[in-house]
Amino acid sequence: MRIYGDLRSGNCYKVKLILHLLDRPHEWVDVDVMAGATKQPDFLAINPNGRVPVAQIPGKGVLTESNAILNYIAMGTPYYPEDPWTRARIQQWQFFEQYTHEPSIAVNRFIMLFQNMPEWRQAEFEAKVTQGYHALDVMESALRKQPFLCGDTYTTADIALYAYTHVAHEGGFDLGPYPSIIEWIDRIQFLPRHVTLDQAKSL
Amino acid sequence: MRIYGDLRSGNCYKVKLILHLLDRPHEWVDVDVMAGATKQPDFLAINPNGRVPVAQIPGKGVLTESNAILNYIAMGTPYYPEDPWTRARIQQWQFFEQYTHEPSIAVNRFIMLFQNMPEWRQAEFEAKVTQGYHALDVMESALRKQPFLCGDTYTTADIALYAYTHVAHEGGFDLGPYPSIIEWIDRIQFLPRHVTLDQAKSL
Repeated sequence: MRIYGDLRSGNCYKVKLILHLLDRPHEWVDVDVMAGATKQPDFLAINPNGRVPVAQIPGKGVLTESNAILNYIAMGTPYYPEDPWTRARIQQWQFFEQYTHEPSIAVNRFIMLFQNMPEWRQAEFEAKVTQGYHALDVMESALRKQPFLCGDTYTTADIALYAYTHVAHEGGFDLGPYPSIIEWIDRIQFLPRHVTLDQAKSL
Repeated sequence: MRIYGDLRSGNCYKVKLILHLLDRPHEWVDVDVMAGATKQPDFLAINPNGRVPVAQIPGKGVLTESNAILNYIAMGTPYYPEDPWTRARIQQWQFFEQYTHEPSIAVNRFIMLFQNMPEWRQAEFEAKVTQGYHALDVMESALRKQPFLCGDTYTTADIALYAYTHVAHEGGFDLGPYPSIIEWIDRIQFLPRHVTLDQAKSL
């Protein structure tokens, strides 16, 4: 399979991480989002939504949206168990990630790290601080009760939320008040074959 | 099963629609979002994220996030086919819906219809006009090639995106330039047992 992605993005990192965990052969095509590569006609012909990651699956076609790609790759493995209720709970966390967590925590990281905090995004940034801490509150309340988001095992729900949570400080978020999230990050980082976002860049 | 929802919300309507299509018995508990009911302690004890819809599934537990609930209810029916590739494509469209479509088209509907277009949201509204038409462009390019979002059959991907698209005019969006979307809406509205958002309110 071929993946188009930019490894500064947590969404792309999710896909790299599952491929590495499963030791799955793939071709990784670097796409420079900051240089506008996702808005060029050749890229838009592949994904009209103009976003990475994109997967080209031989014999199937194009698949977009990080969590959809993640679950598809993990199908048939313990990272995406067969049980319908577990799958429903995984999807719950992943929709929460895309609607509530990513638009605050990932976007503030983008504003701080890649845009160098421009004046015109200041008010937006402040609003997203509140939203981001709310997302972390929701995660903390779940992780207080169980080691992983869907119970006792590490699933694609954890991968989806770990991606931007372990680099949340790059968006100005302090995980200090979230002991259960900190323990969960440690737990994930001790798993065999784990790589952080920074480590994934040199794979 | 018990559903907590507010039928002015397209996200809640998705769940009502699949339950109606499948003629599935359920208890619907009305939650008045505009009156702040989702931010009250009794509701937050059920969903710490403070959002509807929420499903309580006997013998299982609480499930949140509209598309996760939708897929779980539809499991074992033709609306959510077993085939892994089809499920991946359904999820792709649903993540697109929650990340790109809903935050523009549903939010502008909320601002126009329920907040009566306050001055302080004007700039945000304008930005979301552009984002919303981009989401409609992406849908149009897919629906030009096939009758439903994932091919020849109506799935939970269509339900997820139909929810706010068929009321997009309530957020100021003009579907005139989108003939394939208009035909798709007509196609869905002719399906047996279909109800629109307005009709669902009186179920």
